[in-house]
Amino acid sequence: MKRYLVLNGPNLNMTGIRERGVYGTGTLEDIYGEIRALAEELGVEVDFYQSNYEGALIDQLHAAHEGYDGVILNAGAYTHYSYAIRDAIAAIDTPVVEVHISNVHAREEFRKTSVIAPVCMGTIAGFGPKGYLLALRALEEEE
Amino acid sequence: MKRYLVLNGPNLNMTGIRERGVYGTGTLEDIYGEIRALAEELGVEVDFYQSNYEGALIDQLHAAHEGYDGVILNAGAYTHYSYAIRDAIAAIDTPVVEVHISNVHAREEFRKTSVIAPVCMGTIAGFGPKGYLLALRALEEEE
Amino acid sequence: MKRYLVLNGPNLNMTGIRERGVYGTGTLEDIYGEIRALAEELGVEVDFYQSNYEGALIDQLHAAHEGYDGVILNAGAYTHYSYAIRDAIAAIDTPVVEVHISNVHAREEFRKTSVIAPVCMGTIAGFGPKGYLLALRALEEEE
Amino acid sequence: MKRYLVLNGPNLNMTGIRERGVYGTGTLEDIYGEIRALAEELGVEVDFYQSNYEGALIDQLHAAHEGYDGVILNAGAYTHYSYAIRDAIAAIDTPVVEVHISNVHAREEFRKTSVIAPVCMGTIAGFGPKGYLLALRALEEEE
Amino acid sequence: MKRYLVLNGPNLNMTGIRERGVYGTGTLEDIYGEIRALAEELGVEVDFYQSNYEGALIDQLHAAHEGYDGVILNAGAYTHYSYAIRDAIAAIDTPVVEVHISNVHAREEFRKTSVIAPVCMGTIAGFGPKGYLLALRALEEEE
Amino acid sequence: MKRYLVLNGPNLNMTGIRERGVYGTGTLEDIYGEIRALAEELGVEVDFYQSNYEGALIDQLHAAHEGYDGVILNAGAYTHYSYAIRDAIAAIDTPVVEVHISNVHAREEFRKTSVIAPVCMGTIAGFGPKGYLLALRALEEEE
Amino acid sequence: MKRYLVLNGPNLNMTGIRERGVYGTGTLEDIYGEIRALAEELGVEVDFYQSNYEGALIDQLHAAHEGYDGVILNAGAYTHYSYAIRDAIAAIDTPVVEVHISNVHAREEFRKTSVIAPVCMGTIAGFGPKGYLLALRALEEEE
Amino acid sequence: MKRYLVLNGPNLNMTGIRERGVYGTGTLEDIYGEIRALAEELGVEVDFYQSNYEGALIDQLHAAHEGYDGVILNAGAYTHYSYAIRDAIAAIDTPVVEVHISNVHAREEFRKTSVIAPVCMGTIAGFGPKGYLLALRALEEEE
Amino acid sequence: MKRYLVLNGPNLNMTGIRERGVYGTGTLEDIYGEIRALAEELGVEVDFYQSNYEGALIDQLHAAHEGYDGVILNAGAYTHYSYAIRDAIAAIDTPVVEVHISNVHAREEFRKTSVIAPVCMGTIAGFGPKGYLLALRALEEEE
Amino acid sequence: MKRYLVLNGPNLNMTGIRERGVYGTGTLEDIYGEIRALAEELGVEVDFYQSNYEGALIDQLHAAHEGYDGVILNAGAYTHYSYAIRDAIAAIDTPVVEVHISNVHAREEFRKTSVIAPVCMGTIAGFGPKGYLLALRALEEEE
Amino acid sequence: MKRYLVLNGPNLNMTGIRERGVYGTGTLEDIYGEIRALAEELGVEVDFYQSNYEGALIDQLHAAHEGYDGVILNAGAYTHYSYAIRDAIAAIDTPVVEVHISNVHAREEFRKTSVIAPVCMGTIAGFGPKGYLLALRALEEEE
Amino acid sequence: MKRYLVLNGPNLNMTGIRERGVYGTGTLEDIYGEIRALAEELGVEVDFYQSNYEGALIDQLHAAHEGYDGVILNAGAYTHYSYAIRDAIAAIDTPVVEVHISNVHAREEFRKTSVIAPVCMGTIAGFGPKGYLLALRALEEEE
Repeated sequence: MKRYLVLNGPNLNMTGIRERGVYGTGTLEDIYGEIRALAEELGVEVDFYQSNYEGALIDQLHAAHEGYDGVILNAGAYTHYSYAIRDAIAAIDTPVVEVHISNVHAREEFRKTSVIAPVCMGTIAGFGPKGYLLALRALEEEE
Repeated sequence: MKRYLVLNGPNLNMTGIRERGVYGTGTLEDIYGEIRALAEELGVEVDFYQSNYEGALIDQLHAAHEGYDGVILNAGAYTHYSYAIRDAIAAIDTPVVEVHISNVHAREEFRKTSVIAPVCMGTIAGFGPKGYLLALRALEEEE
Repeated sequence: MKRYLVLNGPNLNMTGIRERGVYGTGTLEDIYGEIRALAEELGVEVDFYQSNYEGALIDQLHAAHEGYDGVILNAGAYTHYSYAIRDAIAAIDTPVVEVHISNVHAREEFRKTSVIAPVCMGTIAGFGPKGYLLALRALEEEE
Repeated sequence: MKRYLVLNGPNLNMTGIRERGVYGTGTLEDIYGEIRALAEELGVEVDFYQSNYEGALIDQLHAAHEGYDGVILNAGAYTHYSYAIRDAIAAIDTPVVEVHISNVHAREEFRKTSVIAPVCMGTIAGFGPKGYLLALRALEEEE
Repeated sequence: MKRYLVLNGPNLNMTGIRERGVYGTGTLEDIYGEIRALAEELGVEVDFYQSNYEGALIDQLHAAHEGYDGVILNAGAYTHYSYAIRDAIAAIDTPVVEVHISNVHAREEFRKTSVIAPVCMGTIAGFGPKGYLLALRALEEEE
Repeated sequence: MKRYLVLNGPNLNMTGIRERGVYGTGTLEDIYGEIRALAEELGVEVDFYQSNYEGALIDQLHAAHEGYDGVILNAGAYTHYSYAIRDAIAAIDTPVVEVHISNVHAREEFRKTSVIAPVCMGTIAGFGPKGYLLALRALEEEE
Repeated sequence: MKRYLVLNGPNLNMTGIRERGVYGTGTLEDIYGEIRALAEELGVEVDFYQSNYEGALIDQLHAAHEGYDGVILNAGAYTHYSYAIRDAIAAIDTPVVEVHISNVHAREEFRKTSVIAPVCMGTIAGFGPKGYLLALRALEEEE
Repeated sequence: MKRYLVLNGPNLNMTGIRERGVYGTGTLEDIYGEIRALAEELGVEVDFYQSNYEGALIDQLHAAHEGYDGVILNAGAYTHYSYAIRDAIAAIDTPVVEVHISNVHAREEFRKTSVIAPVCMGTIAGFGPKGYLLALRALEEEE
Repeated sequence: MKRYLVLNGPNLNMTGIRERGVYGTGTLEDIYGEIRALAEELGVEVDFYQSNYEGALIDQLHAAHEGYDGVILNAGAYTHYSYAIRDAIAAIDTPVVEVHISNVHAREEFRKTSVIAPVCMGTIAGFGPKGYLLALRALEEEE
Repeated sequence: MKRYLVLNGPNLNMTGIRERGVYGTGTLEDIYGEIRALAEELGVEVDFYQSNYEGALIDQLHAAHEGYDGVILNAGAYTHYSYAIRDAIAAIDTPVVEVHISNVHAREEFRKTSVIAPVCMGTIAGFGPKGYLLALRALEEEE
Repeated sequence: MKRYLVLNGPNLNMTGIRERGVYGTGTLEDIYGEIRALAEELGVEVDFYQSNYEGALIDQLHAAHEGYDGVILNAGAYTHYSYAIRDAIAAIDTPVVEVHISNVHAREEFRKTSVIAPVCMGTIAGFGPKGYLLALRALEEEE
Repeated sequence: MKRYLVLNGPNLNMTGIRERGVYGTGTLEDIYGEIRALAEELGVEVDFYQSNYEGALIDQLHAAHEGYDGVILNAGAYTHYSYAIRDAIAAIDTPVVEVHISNVHAREEFRKTSVIAPVCMGTIAGFGPKGYLLALRALEEEE
């Protein structure tokens, strides 16, 4: 049975609380619920991890090297400057899909740059929490 | 029954012929086949249009204003400089999903800029022809 | 009797439908009506042409070389990147007046650059549909 | 009866004397004459003020807050860097039309940037002294 | 008894009138009143000067060289480009505190640059009229 | 009784030890003492937290969402690049005041950029340890 | 017998009419005559195509994929921004030689950038209409 | 007898008082004395004018149009941004020599740009007060 | 006996596993072995620490202030943006040598910038694991 | 009989030895042979000179002022920064054709800038050693 | 008796021959004559050296370290990029005056940057050959 | 027996004389002595060459192609702009180590760019004359 890691970065624990106009009112736990439902439907296993620490996200990516078949990563604001997370993605063989809840291109200028996109398998942005579901399908349909 | 337009821009008619290392060996017709299959499964209608003319793409987007429930747009290289297509997307109420077959962020510098992303509903890039299918699901799950 | 060409570029056919907060609710046909009225008052002839195709606009500019005494050009978003239209303006002896309905300087950053302005006779922006009327007067008062 | 202020900035007192290839041979007084004639025709009142002092121009703009129905402003070279004049325009309710005698886009690079344009009602450039007349009409036709 | 100069630059005379969403509804005279009250409490003397002229602000700064124990300067838009005011601050021994009523970093891009900050003692921005009071305390607590 | 959090970022634990020419000889504990004294005088409660971990600062900001009436934040060098801290500030309703001990504008070029300033209530820089006291007053005077 | 396509972009139909100081007085037809003469001498076949439409040029390049042994392309102003034409060149196996009549490097700044040069076989610029003849020789001598 | 104007801009009235390490201890009056002595030796007349007002410097330059045979201009910090002074220099026929007391290129980055240099006859910088004397000779030797 | 700290940043724990073409096949433990051997030969003590957390690296640098005679730092990707680590290096008296396994200048553009180099004693890059040995010698030969 | 100088700059003496994937395996002497053959065919004289010294290339260009009817110049890497060679070309009346063996636009970013192109007659790049032959024809056909 | 070196860089041997509109018709030998005459008048010795080789100019500057009381340097185009000459000037104690015949600021953009100015004593530009005479006076009046 | 070339560029012959605060008081000859001592210890041969001529350094690098087992190159200021030296390094098979005496990153901005680093084996900077010794070890330990 395939196993995927859903990895969320800084401030995503505030989803549903922070800037609801941008991120909606569902909490991270609500999103996890939707992902679990699809995982069950697809017959795959999913684990969840959230941290505001750049180092913790890197540790998790390393752990995914052998532990998972794919990572769904929403690196939050680290997306825009963390070359360390970029190197962590490049360091592992596991495919990583970049997800953003909001359409990052329609917001501040600095959100248009993703330093991790070049080493990810692909990017999904702007579809709200559904983006995680699309990412799971994207990984699952890959062979 | 919902109706979607799959709109492909310049050089996508060469898919399967051009730069196969980047775009794969399936032709645009093969991709249409996959989309049709999913559309049937989802119970929606899809139309297809491809043109190398910026003006023709704009005309189609205008036509989608009232004619379609959503547009899946791969604007090819126009993505990077066509403010005219951007304005066409902004001019219509129909949601538009931006799709790219390859991971544009892992290629030349100029491909990292999308002038249309800020006015699209969202972006899906890097998943090969599967990206169109994810886009269709993204539109379909929207309400 | 003098003869002028009113040349409109991409998305201007959507005027009155698109982004009404920016462009107002009058259609392009309404604007034509106002221009025709002034033309009659001034005793000049005006023709109208709109296209979403960069090439079509270039063809029309070439046609104006001998066919018209002046061109009123709203190049839409092509204003910001079409060096080909710029070259077409430079290629003809007929004076060309650049018009914009909205105040382009008060909008997105990319709208502040006009690659055609340096080869136009002058620029009028921000006065809504009245801008076309001012342009007609500007051409007419020129000798 | 409506009342407009024609406000000219640095070096415009040298019009007709300075760089005649660029600005023509008519003096500022000649231009005033043309404006007065049109004002009479339109049944409006116009006042004139010229200064080489940034502060004096700001003072005049403030005075226009309640004293005038519109301002026709040729801020000369201050156009390109005076954020103080920009703030003065934003501070008042009276509409301000930006005018330039020459086609500023066809000259030195620094003349392509107008820091005041984003807070003006609109811009008219390149039509010589006639630009002031077009500006007066633009203000007058506004309601 | 210590003596401080409160020096206000361009458009600050319009405070309470202009852009109230940004600057509040209190007039400059109201702000002076609050400063006078605190000065009395602290047992110091304060003088006030406002001008829209860059040159006048420079003259006042020079006058402060020997005449004042400190200057509270809100240079308005000159903050962003007046190297002449910067040189005036550097030319005197009196400490100068930079104050801004609004949070300049949350507004237009050009407001993020202060050419005078490097030669000021410190900066206080974003606290509304209270910023002047904080500046007075900052100067007073300095020894 | 109001409650404020004084949050210090990387290297501020070295204050009084590091670069004394820039930061003075008082330790962070000394600064805490001064703040405590003023807090007592103002009848408010203050808590202190320092960490060199970006993630820990984000966690604390989240905790302040409901736990505090205001945050005094010296984010140290994270000020210049941590969009993650910026998002944490934007995610909470509690007002945050940005403080810097030194005049950051008079030092290296990179210190002139604050990525957090646009989402803070205001900024105080260059007044040494007194800056924290001014920030406390700024928060306290806010209503 | 080898077969080459001479492909001319926007405004080249105005050669001999437009900006004669830059492009000379010979028409495009005159240039075709010179090329035909050399083709005959070299024993090769040449076809000619000119369009002001970006899309039409892309279509022709695609047609050249199997239809020609080489393309001589003067993309006019599209040279400076058409990533779509660039992709069309990259999409085909046929070698493409970039030609410019004038010395583009001795003109406006924007003409110094060619977005198509990196995917062309080589570039020839500045030799007037003779450039096409040199390009034909360059292709012919290639093996 | 030839007549020259020595025109000094902002903060030069503080020479001998301000930043002595950079500008020396001689006052502006001392410098005037040295210039007068050389003028006498060369048999020419010199007038002096200093102002901190940009507008006043422009007025003086206009006055020099017919009133003087040459201008020696130290525009102080206006050198780096006053396009209005630049236009004033361009507006008059009288040759203007740009002088700086210090070596502006060995100081802050912003001092390396002179917006007035392109319209001056020449530049002399870095020789202290002697620069004015060299400028006088430069003008005098011109014929 | 002198004591040195070998401090490794993010992803260096993956050395020998990740991108072997760039970093070789030896693990971090293998590298430690080589360093230990040289340390023994030179009669010095070495400690090792690796973390993916920026904060942890800063803590270690602080600890080195009094605990070590020198630090050999490979900050991994933090090299390119961590001004916080830069400040930590500047905060301590212990000399720090910057080491990179690969030739960072021959890779992606962003790797060419080191924000920590200006406060390090020196830099060694491109010699593979041997770089650590050279750094140890560099520190040891320093007096 | 016409006389041309073939002038080669730095590292071209290593042609056939260095980076053969880029420059081919023919030596400079082989290329000279091909040029000599064409020169004979065209009935013109050619001289050859190669140097790694910028100064020597400048000396040769000066010598060409009266000594040659044209220069074929491959300035190697000096192409990208030698304004001194640029000035030497501008200093002489003899036409200079710029040649590059490789397609410089398809390589490193810095190779896209030619500081000498604006003062050359024209440019030929990307055709391997054949480029020199095309240049000779270009000069010969010029009259 | 004081001894000065007049050092001329690339292409100055072509003065009087090259671009006469810019540099005049006098040869370098003519200029030497004027300098010799002034040297005699001032009772100082002058030597002359010209080379097109960057290395030769550096050698001469080194020689001036002890051999001359001052250097008058016209580094020609090396002015704009030779950091090696800059370092040579910084390496010697002898004062160096930078001279340019033309007003470099009124020409191409690249001529506005002098990499040597920051380490020279001062700069004189735009006065034609007279610039050398002013430089000699500047050095001579220095004590 | 292995043979290495120590190649020094512009101004290094002034070491010990020039800017001693930066480069120390030892002469180049002193440094050679230290290198010779280590070479003897390691049982390798070293040759030395210094020149201020870019061309001479290129010639030496070419000579090293077959004549040496490695080059230790301190290219002085040419490091920052000599693409010609870069090409010379790329043209030879012999490994080249880049050395700088001072920490170039702690000095002027322009010294942070090395155009030769990408084609060197590695870089050593900031360790004073010891850097050459480290470089020799680096080459010797390579196999």
